[in-house]
Amino acid sequence: MRIAESVRKLKPYIPGEQPKEARVIKLNTNENPYPPSPKCKAVLRGFDLDRLRRYPDPVFSDLRARIAKIWHTTPERVFVGNGSDEILTLAARAFVEDGEAIGSLDPSYSLYKTLAAIRNVAYTPTPLAADFSWNGRIATRGPKTSLFILTNPNAPTGTLTPSGKIAAAAKRFKGVLLVDEAYADFAKENCVPLATAAENRNVIVMRTFSKSFSLAGMRVGYCIGPTDLIDALYKVKDSYNADAVAQAVALAALNDLPWMRANVAKVRKARARVAKVLSKRGWDVLESSSNFLFARPAHRPAREIFEALREQHIYVRYFPGPRTGDRLRITIGTDAQMDEFLTAVARLDKE
Amino acid sequence: MRIAESVRKLKPYIPGEQPKEARVIKLNTNENPYPPSPKCKAVLRGFDLDRLRRYPDPVFSDLRARIAKIWHTTPERVFVGNGSDEILTLAARAFVEDGEAIGSLDPSYSLYKTLAAIRNVAYTPTPLAADFSWNGRIATRGPKTSLFILTNPNAPTGTLTPSGKIAAAAKRFKGVLLVDEAYADFAKENCVPLATAAENRNVIVMRTFSKSFSLAGMRVGYCIGPTDLIDALYKVKDSYNADAVAQAVALAALNDLPWMRANVAKVRKARARVAKVLSKRGWDVLESSSNFLFARPAHRPAREIFEALREQHIYVRYFPGPRTGDRLRITIGTDAQMDEFLTAVARLDKE
Repeated sequence: MRIAESVRKLKPYIPGEQPKEARVIKLNTNENPYPPSPKCKAVLRGFDLDRLRRYPDPVFSDLRARIAKIWHTTPERVFVGNGSDEILTLAARAFVEDGEAIGSLDPSYSLYKTLAAIRNVAYTPTPLAADFSWNGRIATRGPKTSLFILTNPNAPTGTLTPSGKIAAAAKRFKGVLLVDEAYADFAKENCVPLATAAENRNVIVMRTFSKSFSLAGMRVGYCIGPTDLIDALYKVKDSYNADAVAQAVALAALNDLPWMRANVAKVRKARARVAKVLSKRGWDVLESSSNFLFARPAHRPAREIFEALREQHIYVRYFPGPRTGDRLRITIGTDAQMDEFLTAVARLDKE
Repeated sequence: MRIAESVRKLKPYIPGEQPKEARVIKLNTNENPYPPSPKCKAVLRGFDLDRLRRYPDPVFSDLRARIAKIWHTTPERVFVGNGSDEILTLAARAFVEDGEAIGSLDPSYSLYKTLAAIRNVAYTPTPLAADFSWNGRIATRGPKTSLFILTNPNAPTGTLTPSGKIAAAAKRFKGVLLVDEAYADFAKENCVPLATAAENRNVIVMRTFSKSFSLAGMRVGYCIGPTDLIDALYKVKDSYNADAVAQAVALAALNDLPWMRANVAKVRKARARVAKVLSKRGWDVLESSSNFLFARPAHRPAREIFEALREQHIYVRYFPGPRTGDRLRITIGTDAQMDEFLTAVARLDKE
């Protein structure tokens, strides 16, 4: 019995396809279609090899200070991970006892369920309403949910729960409420003020450089929260979890916020346009606060359109299942990519 | 009770100091004094920003294939981590059930004990003999040890256990034997043939780019083992645990093995010279197969010399405790750095 039983039984999380063909329209993993800031390029180009020879700053002092400054908080409240994926794994270790449970909205990012399985604890879903909205209540059946991961804006729906409702939920909740704000730069509001508030006891807000900053390949995420919870993440992390290049590139990205904001503006504009065109075709398009749309085709099953698009080298995401299986999740690409997507849809989705 | 009890009680692992002063002789964290291959520089300089925008290859296909080729094995037997630290954390998850134990030699890398505490399982040390050699027996008192981490060459001692003895120990052992070969490039033999052998059922050999390849800042480690154990690591890892830059830089380093070997040769030569000088001064110097020496000063307590060196901006490592507290661990630096170290020692270690 050399492999732990929970691991033997584990169904791994399957990330979206990363096709190797060059000529592909890739609207399946919520990447930003625009490149990161030229300041990131400059950091790579001029990187001092002597910094590779030595271990990186284990507590990412410069990056942490910059994040704290942007959000008007102190570096003690900031933690940085090898992608926000790592922060989730560490939170599952730090805030959940054996025999407790991890919860999330349902549907949401399906990794959370896998995360609970890897941590060998129960997973408790909180079902969304028929229109994919959340009533602010966290499901409490079964073992005690000590960590609730709230994706906001949610994925794959793209919908936003107002921060006031989240604040109220946090007040009622006894565990740690981790708000995964991977897509918040594409939304009109966010929950960082909840995380930085002096009276905050149990809210952690998490951000990633993968989406709005176009740095999915670099693996950097961070979170902000009460000092005691942040301290616990430092205690359970690997000694040098963020490499020297990633720290420097993320810092460069934060030193060029106008670049990120310009790309976000372009994505939001294309998002509105595509939503309008699809709606006119009769698709049911959820109002999105993210860099993707979650939409139900008008005339043919979602799966058929997914497969037909794929044959034309247009990759979108399809999640089988009762709540999600009649929709497609479409990442917003460049205007040209969205034109090609819409042209293909016009051909495919006919009565 | 928002923080797990095991985490509240946890004493974190303290990595060696990373002093911020510029003018420092840093012989305290076993970094390579020579820079990584110029091919790594070229990769950074020419890195396509479009690869940062997209998620990295989640299974590091190119890097894995190269590693497999070097060791005459198949890519299915190779796993890559965000530093070998991450591989240890994943192994603790994949190969250890709740209620079992993690073991290691004692003294050895003190992280292993912390790793067991983070995993919330027992830690069972296997004490070394008075001369720091290992008799090949794994201590078995208390809960079942399902993962034994054998550092070879060992740290902080630098001593090598012959691979024949390790093969015999693996045969007797029911759990997973993970041989941490962080320093093996500085030694005369290694255990990779045990990991790649067709009949191998429970040996994983782990390597890092941090020492011999001078890439501590980049955070890349890998391991080789039986396919079922390697598969289990893939199941429990974060989706994209190795970033795109780290994958490319590590691959570049492997494509310039002569560069690494030349640096290793220089370190070994300096190691022999420093060992000889210290021995002549009356220090007790263990025979080292690594890039550091573990030595007992002749005239003054190790701690005093450690502190006096530190005042002169020469950082070595001191591990308090009954087994290690009378010695210093001295990383081998450049020839010029070792000259300064020896000059300082000549001044300090007098009767």
